[in-house]
This record gives sequence, structure tokens and C-alpha cells, in this order.
Amino acid sequence: MEVKVVRKVLDVNNTNARRNRERFAENKVFVLNVMSSPGSGKTTLLEKTLARIMPGIRSGVIVGDICTSHDADRLAKTGAPVVQVNTDEFGGDCHLAAHVIEKAAENLDLGELDLLIVENIGNLVCPAEFDIGEDARAVVLSVTEGEDKPVKYPLMFRECDAAVLNKTDLLPYLDYDRDAALGYIRQVHPGMPVFEMSTKTGEGLDAWIDWIEGRMRLKAEGA
Amino acid sequence: MEVKVVRKVLDVNNTNARRNRERFAENKVFVLNVMSSPGSGKTTLLEKTLARIMPGIRSGVIVGDICTSHDADRLAKTGAPVVQVNTDEFGGDCHLAAHVIEKAAENLDLGELDLLIVENIGNLVCPAEFDIGEDARAVVLSVTEGEDKPVKYPLMFRECDAAVLNKTDLLPYLDYDRDAALGYIRQVHPGMPVFEMSTKTGEGLDAWIDWIEGRMRLKAEGA
Repeated sequence: MEVKVVRKVLDVNNTNARRNRERFAENKVFVLNVMSSPGSGKTTLLEKTLARIMPGIRSGVIVGDICTSHDADRLAKTGAPVVQVNTDEFGGDCHLAAHVIEKAAENLDLGELDLLIVENIGNLVCPAEFDIGEDARAVVLSVTEGEDKPVKYPLMFRECDAAVLNKTDLLPYLDYDRDAALGYIRQVHPGMPVFEMSTKTGEGLDAWIDWIEGRMRLKAEGA
Repeated sequence: MEVKVVRKVLDVNNTNARRNRERFAENKVFVLNVMSSPGSGKTTLLEKTLARIMPGIRSGVIVGDICTSHDADRLAKTGAPVVQVNTDEFGGDCHLAAHVIEKAAENLDLGELDLLIVENIGNLVCPAEFDIGEDARAVVLSVTEGEDKPVKYPLMFRECDAAVLNKTDLLPYLDYDRDAALGYIRQVHPGMPVFEMSTKTGEGLDAWIDWIEGRMRLKAEGA
């Protein structure tokens, strides 16, 4: 019974996601959905990413939190248009659903954007189940979270097109087995690009930016 | 429509939780539900806690993960009876529901336990919504996750009886505002005890153990 209900919710979401995807394509906007646990460094990653690619790539952000506008306030300083979604208005949802993105996108001038980044709710489980009409998905995992999260939360790592392994500046102070972590990612999603990075120092940011730009070019070429 | 369905799921869960609570009380078992983001150090906290309180306090563990038995394997080394729940058998649930705990508890001899610790799924959102029949709830937050998680995930911090602020050994390498973090916790849940701790070094563990033992005594005295 419960499974049937969940299926219906996901079916409705897929319909809404398809509508979003068409709308984004009409406006030639590339949409990147960024997901992670709470506190893995998504907002800092987006701050550094926007600072690097703007104004050449005209970028906007939809940022999801259950409560507060802390992240939107930080991201607005980059000069990008930012829409904050607080899911406590939608029953405290643990993920961003397609209809929420549709509503949030109404507050952006899509025709003026090349790239729309969605910072999802901090949650390594539920957001992976909800298509929002994006072109690519990335998961951010901080090294302080330990090596084995990819096998413990496999759907997230299977559904994403790239992984950022963040906070590498803390590696000297952790008992962290880098080979094990990379092995677990490969086990769940063979061939997925992994960007080892310190969003604090900026080390490793270049390869990530190259990946985004590459994916945007691919889409523009109709691939 | 969706809200109604969610309410029904939670009503059924409350009925199951009540049944669990009666069963735990009959067996004089104190149940502690430990929740957090992925990778905040729950398993290490439980390893250190069990090593300290056993065999004086006869303890068992139910550990929830979507996949893998990594945590159960680690906890079994303490000598405590451990039951691993993998929620991918229940549709990949992002939380432990009361009926899942009921089933897991069938694999434990409750009459031989004083304390049952439940290590919930790594998720700072959904587990807070599900009563499992526990006597007390604790949330673990690592300092690497940043200061503002209590106001971003307020339900979790409101619903818990204590907070562990973990990984304090990393503070020298972080830009972390301790007063802000404690202020955010107080803002959401005034008066909640906060245990600053490094589960790696063991620093701060004593006060946490005292709190558990105090809560167990209170229950035994029928308070």
C-alpha cells in the first residue's frame, strides 16, 4: 500500500520534471543538481564555482533548505540571481521535488541564464529519488564523512554524473584511506569522474569547472 | 492529498511505537535512539560508549543502514549483541520506522538487556519524524558540518533530548565559531544538554555516559 503511494508520488514528479526539462531546453539553460549530506561544503563549492565562471557563463541558483536563508544570503554576494526555497512551506520536505523547482524558476529570468545550479537539501538519501528536470547531477562528499558512504548510500552515487571529494585540506588530521574511498565510489558507479578538492583553499577546482563547461558544450552541441 | 497519506503513515507508526514502548517497559530495557547526518561519528560514539558501560550495563544495539553491515561488524567487536537492519529490504527507507524496530528486536533477548541503543540511518531530516518507542533521543553533529545545522534542521534538534558535538579534535584546523553553534542549538531547543566530544580521543565522553546513566536511573525509578 505504502509502496503504491510512493510510486504515484514519483510518477507525478516525473511528469513535472519532464515539463521543467522542456522549459529549460527552450531557454537554453543547463541545469546542474548538486546534492550531499548536511555540511559537506555545497555552498562554499558554489560560491567558488560562481566566482570562477561568471560573468562569462551567466549563472543563477536555486537553493533548498528546510529553514533559513543562510545559504542564499551567502550566494547572493556572488552577484548571481538566487532563489531560496524553504521546504517547511511544503511540509518540511527532505528533498526538492520537480514542482518546487518549477515554482522557484518562475522567479528567475531563464532567457538570461546559461547555467542554473540547484543546491539541494542536505540529505544523502531522498533527493536522489527525485528528478527535477536537470541535465547533470553531482554529489559532494567530504572526507570527514569517512570512506564508505558510497556503498551505504548507493542510489545517490549511482544516480550522479560526478562526485566531489571535498575538504582535502583536512586529510593530514584524519585517518582517511583515500584508495578505499575511491574504490567504494568505483564499486557503485564505475567510471564516474571524481574531483578531489578543497573548496576552502580552491585546490582541485579547475578540473570541476572544466567538467561543468564540457557538459554544457555537449548539451549545446545537441549531444 | 499527499499530506493526508503522510499523516496516515505517521499514525500507523505511532501505534507501532506504542506497542514497542510497552514491550521495552515490560522487559525493563531503556532505549536510546541516536541520529545524525552521514559520517558524523555515530558508530565510533557507540563503540566508545559500549566499551565504557559494559558489562555493568547489559547493552544491545540495532543499527540501521540502507545497505552494508559495516557498522554492525564494527559494533559486534564490543561483545554486545547487534542486529543490522538494511532498509533496502523495506524500499530503501531513509529512516527506521517502529515496525522495523519491532522486527529487529525479535532477534534480541530483551529480558537480558538493560540498554538498547538504536543507531538510526544517517539523515538529519526524516528519522526525527518517526517515533520508534524509545525513551530518549540524541543527535550527533560533527563540528566539520558547520555551525548552523540546528536552525536548518530544527525538527531534529527540537525532538532530541541531548546533542553530541563531535570531532572537537579537528577544531584547530577549522574556522569554527563555537559560540554561534551553541547559540543555534539553544535557539531551537533551549536547555538541551550539549556534550562537546572527540570520539577519536575520548575527550568529553564522561559527561555523555553520566547523562545516559542518569536517564536510565530516572526511568527505573518510574519518573
